[in-house]
Amino acid sequence: MFSSLLVIDGDDEAPENNTAPGNPKLMEFRFEKVFPVYAMGVLKPDPDPVLAEFSSGSDLHDPIWDAVREEAKLEAEKEPILSSFLYASILSHDCLERALGFVLANRLQSPTLLATQLMDIFCNIIMDDRNIQRSIRLDVQAFKDRDPSCLSYCSALLYLKGYHSLQAYRVAHALWNQGRKVLALALQSRISEVFGVDIHPAAKIGEGILLDHATGVVIGETAVIGNRVSLMQGVTLGGTGKETGDRHPKVGQGALVGASANILGNIKIGEGAMIAAGSLVLKEVPPRSMVAGIPAKVIGYYEDEQDPSLTMKHDASKEFFEHVAVQR
Amino acid sequence: MFSSLLVIDGDDEAPENNTAPGNPKLMEFRFEKVFPVYAMGVLKPDPDPVLAEFSSGSDLHDPIWDAVREEAKLEAEKEPILSSFLYASILSHDCLERALGFVLANRLQSPTLLATQLMDIFCNIIMDDRNIQRSIRLDVQAFKDRDPSCLSYCSALLYLKGYHSLQAYRVAHALWNQGRKVLALALQSRISEVFGVDIHPAAKIGEGILLDHATGVVIGETAVIGNRVSLMQGVTLGGTGKETGDRHPKVGQGALVGASANILGNIKIGEGAMIAAGSLVLKEVPPRSMVAGIPAKVIGYYEDEQDPSLTMKHDASKEFFEHVAVQR
Amino acid sequence: MFSSLLVIDGDDEAPENNTAPGNPKLMEFRFEKVFPVYAMGVLKPDPDPVLAEFSSGSDLHDPIWDAVREEAKLEAEKEPILSSFLYASILSHDCLERALGFVLANRLQSPTLLATQLMDIFCNIIMDDRNIQRSIRLDVQAFKDRDPSCLSYCSALLYLKGYHSLQAYRVAHALWNQGRKVLALALQSRISEVFGVDIHPAAKIGEGILLDHATGVVIGETAVIGNRVSLMQGVTLGGTGKETGDRHPKVGQGALVGASANILGNIKIGEGAMIAAGSLVLKEVPPRSMVAGIPAKVIGYYEDEQDPSLTMKHDASKEFFEHVAVQR
Amino acid sequence: MFSSLLVIDGDDEAPENNTAPGNPKLMEFRFEKVFPVYAMGVLKPDPDPVLAEFSSGSDLHDPIWDAVREEAKLEAEKEPILSSFLYASILSHDCLERALGFVLANRLQSPTLLATQLMDIFCNIIMDDRNIQRSIRLDVQAFKDRDPSCLSYCSALLYLKGYHSLQAYRVAHALWNQGRKVLALALQSRISEVFGVDIHPAAKIGEGILLDHATGVVIGETAVIGNRVSLMQGVTLGGTGKETGDRHPKVGQGALVGASANILGNIKIGEGAMIAAGSLVLKEVPPRSMVAGIPAKVIGYYEDEQDPSLTMKHDASKEFFEHVAVQR
Amino acid sequence: MFSSLLVIDGDDEAPENNTAPGNPKLMEFRFEKVFPVYAMGVLKPDPDPVLAEFSSGSDLHDPIWDAVREEAKLEAEKEPILSSFLYASILSHDCLERALGFVLANRLQSPTLLATQLMDIFCNIIMDDRNIQRSIRLDVQAFKDRDPSCLSYCSALLYLKGYHSLQAYRVAHALWNQGRKVLALALQSRISEVFGVDIHPAAKIGEGILLDHATGVVIGETAVIGNRVSLMQGVTLGGTGKETGDRHPKVGQGALVGASANILGNIKIGEGAMIAAGSLVLKEVPPRSMVAGIPAKVIGYYEDEQDPSLTMKHDASKEFFEHVAVQR
Amino acid sequence: MFSSLLVIDGDDEAPENNTAPGNPKLMEFRFEKVFPVYAMGVLKPDPDPVLAEFSSGSDLHDPIWDAVREEAKLEAEKEPILSSFLYASILSHDCLERALGFVLANRLQSPTLLATQLMDIFCNIIMDDRNIQRSIRLDVQAFKDRDPSCLSYCSALLYLKGYHSLQAYRVAHALWNQGRKVLALALQSRISEVFGVDIHPAAKIGEGILLDHATGVVIGETAVIGNRVSLMQGVTLGGTGKETGDRHPKVGQGALVGASANILGNIKIGEGAMIAAGSLVLKEVPPRSMVAGIPAKVIGYYEDEQDPSLTMKHDASKEFFEHVAVQR
Repeated sequence: MFSSLLVIDGDDEAPENNTAPGNPKLMEFRFEKVFPVYAMGVLKPDPDPVLAEFSSGSDLHDPIWDAVREEAKLEAEKEPILSSFLYASILSHDCLERALGFVLANRLQSPTLLATQLMDIFCNIIMDDRNIQRSIRLDVQAFKDRDPSCLSYCSALLYLKGYHSLQAYRVAHALWNQGRKVLALALQSRISEVFGVDIHPAAKIGEGILLDHATGVVIGETAVIGNRVSLMQGVTLGGTGKETGDRHPKVGQGALVGASANILGNIKIGEGAMIAAGSLVLKEVPPRSMVAGIPAKVIGYYEDEQDPSLTMKHDASKEFFEHVAVQR
Repeated sequence: MFSSLLVIDGDDEAPENNTAPGNPKLMEFRFEKVFPVYAMGVLKPDPDPVLAEFSSGSDLHDPIWDAVREEAKLEAEKEPILSSFLYASILSHDCLERALGFVLANRLQSPTLLATQLMDIFCNIIMDDRNIQRSIRLDVQAFKDRDPSCLSYCSALLYLKGYHSLQAYRVAHALWNQGRKVLALALQSRISEVFGVDIHPAAKIGEGILLDHATGVVIGETAVIGNRVSLMQGVTLGGTGKETGDRHPKVGQGALVGASANILGNIKIGEGAMIAAGSLVLKEVPPRSMVAGIPAKVIGYYEDEQDPSLTMKHDASKEFFEHVAVQR
Repeated sequence: MFSSLLVIDGDDEAPENNTAPGNPKLMEFRFEKVFPVYAMGVLKPDPDPVLAEFSSGSDLHDPIWDAVREEAKLEAEKEPILSSFLYASILSHDCLERALGFVLANRLQSPTLLATQLMDIFCNIIMDDRNIQRSIRLDVQAFKDRDPSCLSYCSALLYLKGYHSLQAYRVAHALWNQGRKVLALALQSRISEVFGVDIHPAAKIGEGILLDHATGVVIGETAVIGNRVSLMQGVTLGGTGKETGDRHPKVGQGALVGASANILGNIKIGEGAMIAAGSLVLKEVPPRSMVAGIPAKVIGYYEDEQDPSLTMKHDASKEFFEHVAVQR
Repeated sequence: MFSSLLVIDGDDEAPENNTAPGNPKLMEFRFEKVFPVYAMGVLKPDPDPVLAEFSSGSDLHDPIWDAVREEAKLEAEKEPILSSFLYASILSHDCLERALGFVLANRLQSPTLLATQLMDIFCNIIMDDRNIQRSIRLDVQAFKDRDPSCLSYCSALLYLKGYHSLQAYRVAHALWNQGRKVLALALQSRISEVFGVDIHPAAKIGEGILLDHATGVVIGETAVIGNRVSLMQGVTLGGTGKETGDRHPKVGQGALVGASANILGNIKIGEGAMIAAGSLVLKEVPPRSMVAGIPAKVIGYYEDEQDPSLTMKHDASKEFFEHVAVQR
Repeated sequence: MFSSLLVIDGDDEAPENNTAPGNPKLMEFRFEKVFPVYAMGVLKPDPDPVLAEFSSGSDLHDPIWDAVREEAKLEAEKEPILSSFLYASILSHDCLERALGFVLANRLQSPTLLATQLMDIFCNIIMDDRNIQRSIRLDVQAFKDRDPSCLSYCSALLYLKGYHSLQAYRVAHALWNQGRKVLALALQSRISEVFGVDIHPAAKIGEGILLDHATGVVIGETAVIGNRVSLMQGVTLGGTGKETGDRHPKVGQGALVGASANILGNIKIGEGAMIAAGSLVLKEVPPRSMVAGIPAKVIGYYEDEQDPSLTMKHDASKEFFEHVAVQR
Repeated sequence: MFSSLLVIDGDDEAPENNTAPGNPKLMEFRFEKVFPVYAMGVLKPDPDPVLAEFSSGSDLHDPIWDAVREEAKLEAEKEPILSSFLYASILSHDCLERALGFVLANRLQSPTLLATQLMDIFCNIIMDDRNIQRSIRLDVQAFKDRDPSCLSYCSALLYLKGYHSLQAYRVAHALWNQGRKVLALALQSRISEVFGVDIHPAAKIGEGILLDHATGVVIGETAVIGNRVSLMQGVTLGGTGKETGDRHPKVGQGALVGASANILGNIKIGEGAMIAAGSLVLKEVPPRSMVAGIPAKVIGYYEDEQDPSLTMKHDASKEFFEHVAVQR
């Protein structure tokens, strides 16, 4: 019932430039400023009157946070073993940002980085950065919309390590940009140990991202990932050579990268492209194409309105494959 | 010397329907009722007289548990650093079920799910469910028989995360079936964090299963895995599309799925099929065939008496490949 | 500025036979004896006069340890959150060996294996084994030289789980050779749980090894890896069949194995060979060849002076692939 | 409303000899056999008809356990932060014995004695020992009746370290009697560290005991404490001399020992005696007397029907003191 | 050099009624409103011009917090092992309140009450309660002024368990008053376990309190302690009898209670009274008197201008004692 | 059978001046130099021929360490739950110093002071300081000789918090003398939290000390304790007044201080004096006298050859008391 609270704006900005104007320290922001897409609904020329009304109403209304709380309440009633965890993680907080900071701090803590310290670091960064505030909502929406076994916002927030490693990366990325590289790398190391996900804090990742299952994902230092991309477990966006410099892939918005696919080098993956699972991609992939194989070759194009990252049709290439197989 | 205590029945039942009749609460079960295969030996029309004798003897004789204890005693004598661990994990318990509950509880504990709580949950579920009691034995036998570097039942029970994640899934599955979905999902999340293995609690998995090395394995919500299947590390049994419903593979009994193979969609992997490592499988695979490639194609059939999951001959396809390579 | 402290000797010894002569218990060894390559510089017939001078100076000079300390000091000044961690891990120790023992003990600790116990075990093994002393230096040099996002020795030592799992394996290997197999296996299990890297303690691994990102790496019991090899994340060096005996790959020195590549069976990977990411290798690979695909086929040879493991050019095969693709 | 579920029998048996007859392994005991006092009510020749009726009813009815559960439910509803703790500690268990084992295991755990191990040890001992089963009920009743700030059985069970250290001692005492002295001493050490209460496992302590606040209490190896005794914080029942043998006090039933009182040597404290806080007692104390001072002298006798340990009138001696003070 | 930042007002208010007027949620309070005493200096009719100037300056100036930070900086430079701890505990926070919340949360954490949860609870309570904000400053001043081995505010804040247990009690007291009695009692239990200090959350304690060494202190439910009181280790303010109701001592402002003294019952300890160590006090003690003994008797009066709690002259009674001793 | 390995020299040196000559860094010391008393036997003009022989034998013979190991082996055989703990704590170490460092590190660890760090600190200090090496042996002998319930050296080393807090103080004292006061105070704080024993690191404490039970002991900054002193639980050696400077008691060698006794101010407790439990001592106590009361008065002298700290006859004063009581 909360399945479509967020629809992502077609007008994707570059991941690093989508800061909303205004004083980032101000805590009482107007939501439709910070989250224009979120507040207004998208893709449709005529805004849904309900959403329109909502967005012009209270500035502080946050439907995702409302949904998370509602779900947590229901779950707490069902499962006494977890009710205090749900309370402490969600119900005792006043916004999604703090709830997320709490959850991440408890999963990533170590004797070197105490949970209390991490909670301070995470909350300070997130409460101050409207891009992250927007991304954590668009990402949770992505998990809810595209992963059919993700039944609630709440379960993404609490349990999915793809979501956790992505948001922890967002904090590490902000630290990196602030010049706190040592801490950012320590965080990367801890994320890799706890979740098996290795994202360099300098990588640039858009919003509305799904990291499904996530174990084994590697994203290199100069990689760039556009909005609305879906990456399955075991995906590598790797470099080649041992020179520093721009050496990792640029993944266009709406692309879907299948499990264990390896994309290597500073190459462009076109918007809406689909990389079949297990493929090795060493050269540019055209927009809205499907590629597969070791090395990957284009096996077709598709004309769906929707991005493959959103339909998650991993086997869209099936018929092409069959065709190809027959030909050979 | 304990290499063949269990041989699996050729007459495989569906994973969900193999419950032995009788009162599941009754703790003094007769072993040949609960573990008919195990107790009687299989595949051979004339039961081995020794086994026959054993099964008609004491109802409570449990050769795997005896072996585990014997091994643990020997190891405790060799390695004082681990002797208390071996005592606490195995020797202080009175049955395999409790030993396993103890081991799993200590590996999966977190501040949210205390070890003592988990031990209660695991023991309660396992002591009450004859299917699990049978599966934990048939699985440990599978690890012992098929992984040549697994030298003892004891080491599978104590150290192999493939075995641990599989048995923890079995408990989560039972919780899911009891309607405790919130707890089952929390457990899945923890298994994924600790072991890097992500098995949806609703998946249906038979018995006599080997999850070798296990890191990166993903098994989706509506996947079904038959008995005696072997899955290597990094295998994905994934869905396609974002619709809910039956969308994951059905793996027939005796199949062997190589490392990092991706099998996507509601497709059937025939009994005794062999999926080469790294392959991407998008369509049905015939029984006793070998498939390989991205996308995977049938490269031959074999006539071994034994299932590939049991012989573990990952390179059985070598000659076929060579043939294919020559032809091209 | 520390980018080339170590160059590896072209005259690679078998991993198990490179023990320096002399009493291994003697702690005041002469460095040019223990680390001849390291002390003298290599590959060049005429030793670099600077290095020559250095090596004839103080026997106990250790440029890597000096660099690690220098880097740690700088980082401690920049990041107060981590300054005590840097002090405790590096600055409070008197040699690289103890610093490494400290770091590994804290990452691998569990209630079964206390950090203090592990530190004792690690330090005892490493302080007594000149091969490991040499390997931990040549390995850290490999990470520093070949991973462009590894900016310092210090960060490899503190944060990279590829480095950690490799050195922890080296200790487990030494324990295995001492006959403490039970403890070695317990350590393997813990490394697999914490880092997602599963290296059998009986495997033989040379020096100057890079395990990049490392999640999902599996190295089997009878595998042998030569010096200067680079393995990316998700690589499997696996066995086939369920018989014990020599059943795993032998990887020649200087080889580069791409992410998620699967090499199965007792086959030889030639010196300086390059295995493309995602490939499935089932038969011998000639020296200095490039192979790719499922199953992998030779797609070319190269004539670089340097090993692919050192250049890390994962896309060296790109032009070959393009050629092949065109032909087909 | 649960203020008087237990009344203690006037006919106190020696602490070591009050084992109920019958098979201690039998789990379905009849309560009036195991807890005759508890079941029948006491002190009054004519049994309270309500209690009589209750005791002739279901053998398995356990009013204390019912009360604990009822209280825990109410508290869980009021305080979400603790609801899972209350569930895990009390509501998920089926008897007081297991709930107590769970609580103690979690408070006393250390890397040397895992919570899961302790829970096994505690539950095994307690489920097998009817004396302890009786004592844990009579003790919790004592806390509830005599400590006015103890508002519920539940809070004694969960929070009061006097109750915890006493029950953990009871387990250590049982281990000591079984000959497991090494483990009993390890437990004593841990109780002393966690609770600041040092009770030698060989000491003999009756039932219906209140250890109020408990910090600093020391009870020596050959001390004997009768039923219904109340000891305040900081009390020492110590030995004198360095010879082994019977060298600690024997405290008669119903005595009340004030805070920081020191009773030294193998001397007899009469039944119902009252030792003023801070006193040093070096010689026998007559029954129903009040003693005070350093060294303690008899300052009077009293004629209350009730034992001072039950009335908890620490200032009963006030008027005597005033009298004495005036005289001097 | 920070030895006298705070002087306590002679006009002591009842502990429960000293709330500053105004909106407690407002975070930018004026310091001279919240901390009039602190801001203005006391006891002297003519305010010290320096302090007067300071108080009329910036509203947000907080000399104690400034001192704590300055000390922490110096200590961090001296001791690298603790520099991150000092940074995380003090230097990374923006006010004394949060620093204290951080420190207490880390010391009191348990699996039932996570550090992150406790930090939230403590910070929420303290940031909202001006009385506590004032008390934590007046208390730290008391430790600094009266304990000669307490060399800095910083060390009281970080290391002294008397200070920690007192401030944790203040939070528990606020929770109790909000009706969260279950949580308040859980906190009391944890304080008693960690620090060996048992203060009932309903007790009423003034400000400017010194709990020196603190082990074994017990303060009962209806006890009231005035401002500027000093309590040594092992002191009991206990009840008598088992009836509920007002049954604990009322300690007047400026009193000094020696180690292991026991004060029992609803009696009044006069302002500036001095209770000798080890005494048992059962009746009212006149203001500015010295009492000693078991039971305690008045042994004299004194005419010092300063309260004994401030001079900390435990042996002020020496000459009286000698006199008394001679007479007898 | 190990009951008298050490006898303490009658010629007691001041605690701070008994350093053996020679290079403290030299690890191969001759035992009779470091431990002259220990090696030669004492009190008797003619050395026991057995001891004489032993001391002229191997320089490195250490009878206490031998005994500890022998006891640990026996206990490990009896109690499998603790066998690994015994191995890790004692049997895996090569000297008493490292075993003690291991045990203390594990008991005192916290997220601020990791066990591995503490082990380094403790071992470095102890391996370098012959006074501590001597004290840890004379102290363990004291526990074994004077506490009749201490059945072995091993149990003192592993379980007695009096021994632990004393040795941890010795390390803190050495750090204090090295100028690492911040770390010394952090350690004091941790000792107080874990053991409830608060010893200022600047205090000077001799050797052959028994801290029995230990909870609540407080020893102030300028206190001095001679050799062979026994302090019971709850003893305070406190200061008076708030001035810095020499303000704590000086306890002569061989004194015995009873439980909860308070000794306040810079006063002298004569050699071999006995302070009755609960007493308040405010003025000098003559050698070999017995004092008792609040305030304490001399109640007699004794003529035993042995110090009361060695006989531990707490009730030696009994007859005097009786006499006094009769007279009054």
